[in-house]
Amino acid sequence: MDKTARGQLVDLPADECWQLLTTTPVGRIAWTTSTGPEVIPVNFAVDGRTIKIRTAAYSAMVQKADAERVAFQVDRIDEDTHTGWSVLARGRAEVRYGDPEEPTGPEPWVRGPRSATVVIDVDEITGRWLNPPEQ
Amino acid sequence: MDKTARGQLVDLPADECWQLLTTTPVGRIAWTTSTGPEVIPVNFAVDGRTIKIRTAAYSAMVQKADAERVAFQVDRIDEDTHTGWSVLARGRAEVRYGDPEEPTGPEPWVRGPRSATVVIDVDEITGRWLNPPEQ
Repeated sequence: MDKTARGQLVDLPADECWQLLTTTPVGRIAWTTSTGPEVIPVNFAVDGRTIKIRTAAYSAMVQKADAERVAFQVDRIDEDTHTGWSVLARGRAEVRYGDPEEPTGPEPWVRGPRSATVVIDVDEITGRWLNPPEQ
Repeated sequence: MDKTARGQLVDLPADECWQLLTTTPVGRIAWTTSTGPEVIPVNFAVDGRTIKIRTAAYSAMVQKADAERVAFQVDRIDEDTHTGWSVLARGRAEVRYGDPEEPTGPEPWVRGPRSATVVIDVDEITGRWLNPPEQ
């Protein structure tokens, strides 16, 4: 990967995108609605080539994202140096119900029943690195 | 605003959402495509009840988001304490071309021509606060 070009966006290979996904516990899931996209932050776990999110069975995410194509976005940006990276994973979401103690699911941060797991079967992953500008 | 409920999501009033938007220079714009949402991080400026993003005239954002409903998301989450907030602004995007030195636009972090400004006319803003869980 060429990280030498300064002040430019550099595409990241897929393997590095997956690796970066494991470095942060919080991302953002986006789904389509009739009034534009909806985007909410969630904590998540990577399991193979899927992304798993635990949520409440009655959440908007479960109602709207099931069997739809969604996006999952993670970034880490230093606001002082204007450097960082972002990763966008896209694929079909599927809602699974069942064992809330499923070991591969992430531990929810929000209290209350979290009996559903949104599983994103990722078929497209892209990432970019923003280099520091020249001094 | 009730910030006392622990481990729960608390809705934020619109005024506080707008105030929080001014506390960070980086957010994420999302738009709809035929294969699901697209989400990318951008730096931005708040101008009245609009959000402005400078970009290249040939960018995917300009091509796909113009005259469409988009979402703009900002959050600040402490991964150690599981506390933080998120704000989601939604509205119609419009691409404007012209003076790249427009003073109300944000300064781009990425080098190269940034001759277009995406202006989001926000008609819906929501936010949530995640409180710390009980010890």
